[in-house]
Amino acid sequence: MAVGPATFPSKMHPVQGFELGTASAGIKTPGRKDVVLMRICDDASVVGVFTKNAFCAAPVQLCKDHLSKAAARYLIVNTGNANAGTGQEGWQDAVATCEAVATLCDTDTASVLPFSTGVIGEKLPVEKLIAALPKAKEALSVDGWNDAAEGILTTDTRLKGCSKQFVYQGKTVTLTGISKGSGMIKPNMATMLGYVATDAEVEAGLLQQLLIDATDCSFNRITVDGDTSTNDSCMLVATGKSGLVVSESDQEGFLAFKQALTVVMQTLAHAIIRDGEGATKFVTVCVESAASQEEALRTAFDIAHSPLVKTALFASDPNWGRILAVVGRAGIENLDLNALQIFLGDVCIVSQGGRDSGYTEDAGQAVMDGEEILIRVVLNRGDVTETVWTTDLSHDYVSINADYRS
Amino acid sequence: MAVGPATFPSKMHPVQGFELGTASAGIKTPGRKDVVLMRICDDASVVGVFTKNAFCAAPVQLCKDHLSKAAARYLIVNTGNANAGTGQEGWQDAVATCEAVATLCDTDTASVLPFSTGVIGEKLPVEKLIAALPKAKEALSVDGWNDAAEGILTTDTRLKGCSKQFVYQGKTVTLTGISKGSGMIKPNMATMLGYVATDAEVEAGLLQQLLIDATDCSFNRITVDGDTSTNDSCMLVATGKSGLVVSESDQEGFLAFKQALTVVMQTLAHAIIRDGEGATKFVTVCVESAASQEEALRTAFDIAHSPLVKTALFASDPNWGRILAVVGRAGIENLDLNALQIFLGDVCIVSQGGRDSGYTEDAGQAVMDGEEILIRVVLNRGDVTETVWTTDLSHDYVSINADYRS
Repeated sequence: MAVGPATFPSKMHPVQGFELGTASAGIKTPGRKDVVLMRICDDASVVGVFTKNAFCAAPVQLCKDHLSKAAARYLIVNTGNANAGTGQEGWQDAVATCEAVATLCDTDTASVLPFSTGVIGEKLPVEKLIAALPKAKEALSVDGWNDAAEGILTTDTRLKGCSKQFVYQGKTVTLTGISKGSGMIKPNMATMLGYVATDAEVEAGLLQQLLIDATDCSFNRITVDGDTSTNDSCMLVATGKSGLVVSESDQEGFLAFKQALTVVMQTLAHAIIRDGEGATKFVTVCVESAASQEEALRTAFDIAHSPLVKTALFASDPNWGRILAVVGRAGIENLDLNALQIFLGDVCIVSQGGRDSGYTEDAGQAVMDGEEILIRVVLNRGDVTETVWTTDLSHDYVSINADYRS
Repeated sequence: MAVGPATFPSKMHPVQGFELGTASAGIKTPGRKDVVLMRICDDASVVGVFTKNAFCAAPVQLCKDHLSKAAARYLIVNTGNANAGTGQEGWQDAVATCEAVATLCDTDTASVLPFSTGVIGEKLPVEKLIAALPKAKEALSVDGWNDAAEGILTTDTRLKGCSKQFVYQGKTVTLTGISKGSGMIKPNMATMLGYVATDAEVEAGLLQQLLIDATDCSFNRITVDGDTSTNDSCMLVATGKSGLVVSESDQEGFLAFKQALTVVMQTLAHAIIRDGEGATKFVTVCVESAASQEEALRTAFDIAHSPLVKTALFASDPNWGRILAVVGRAGIENLDLNALQIFLGDVCIVSQGGRDSGYTEDAGQAVMDGEEILIRVVLNRGDVTETVWTTDLSHDYVSINADYRS
């Protein structure tokens, strides 16, 4: 069950200088693609953003440590086991994984970054992972995106990818990325992994800022269930092979790149929501004319997390009273109830502190019957707008999470 | 579906000076008891606590207004319609209700307090309500508690009541109360109504403080779904008919009364959780040795609201990794992962930053198989303890809220 047509592109444009190889290690399910190795060319810039969960997993800690010590040249991802909540042993297993990649590929251990996703709290079967590395290395190819998109999935039901090109100063620049994530999804970041590569040349400091900005309007604005995982990571690699240099001194090229990156990251983030656990609706919550970003985001996320709003969305029930009740409890100081408006799509449902006089149940029902629903709250007290994306709460969400040990 | 044996007492002790009368107005469902009138003797103290939702319903606003103007002598409750999100018309309907009670009972309008619970955003059928008032008045009796307990319910599946007596200085003091609530339950307050009466004599200022303190360890510590309603109200009435005066100058009597009030309020609050929408588990979340009340409460409520923890509870799955992940995202500053411990019942599941070395799946499973589950988080960084109570998240929760227009 996923919302809307599949969005995985028919053509994932290769990024010169970035190769991917996928193998089966049988970490959780025999035969499943569950190990992905990625090779990055020399001189590339590599930056990442990571979960803010205090219990961040051993591979996340090791990733940060290695990034601070050396230029990253290999990324190694496994699914089926998050290597989280595993204490000192988990750290050693992550180190052993990096050492094995370094030996196999003749590089330094610190130039290898590890990523794990799957069950929390069980020992990583590191021998199985290591045994699969040679096959992953053999498979390395700039055309390896599709297999890799499959190899990083857990409870996902769909491949998630996006690939964009733009031409600037006669040079074609490519941005291609994949992501995974379906449940335990909340900003900072989601339970997700994301890998985006470009052949633009971007200095590491600038690339880091671009990644942070793009994350803040994509992965940090989605929520399925409000639960933040221990393993979220998103990496951005710039190989420089296109010959185009992105820098702030050339604003036109900079903005073209930034826009393309935002589109890729938002597409990957939206793909996670469309494939949210049990999702039957793709819901956009937009809070407009707020007095601060903080109140706009809190209101939007409170709506997006409300079990009563989410079950009403599942039922296609235009139960606007539940949305109104959430806005009322969102802690907005000195809220003027008579000034705000709430819309379902284009239909005004609340104004003057109550049901809008022009509202009809039929009009509300027509919006709710759709698969893609927009909830707009216009506070009329400032100039800040924030948008988040979420799912409904269905029987399948309960089934998936009552059955799956994640 | 409710958790554990029913807790409604076989004997609801009458409180002299406090009468209850119940009738059927057919507000939402023909024949259902849906109107409760309560009469309070002269010289009683009457205090209340109310929802902090900014969209508080018309009856809540009118209640506060009337309480500030006159001694309350009548409480009028209807179910089936919350008269919330109804704007100016809703206010007029609440006023009309109070006027009708005042006329019928020969009192001032300001001495009548209105309460409504049920569907949000639909016009209150005030004529039906008023037409049922004479029958409710005829039924007024100090023995009217059982009918009233039934008359205030909405999606509840059980009557909720508690009645305690204690003897002090040769005088028998009674505290008897009823509550309703099942979904849209979160502190500040829950979607709930509560009415507690005692025949002790308590000055209004002290009674208000006692109610606030008791609410803060009962109704403000329960959550089903994190949604706060527009109509929550809890009233405490002290008629003085027992002849015992409760005052802080007599600490022994004061503490005896305070303890009895706390027991009654906690029992009524726990009854709401046991009857939580779709509940199959009664879950106590205790956060110990926190550095502040704020971090203790936030951690406890984050656990209690986590859909992943709640679905694991529904599945009786000792998925401790999900609890650990919530503690990690609860925003505790400078959290020492190695110092904290997490317990399921008496079983230590997390220590030293990972699964406790003595933990076995069988031990965890034995705890989760029970209907009553204790989750204890010992932060080891201060001396604050907070406890909240919640439910699991089941298929029935989704069914109830996808089907019911509340």
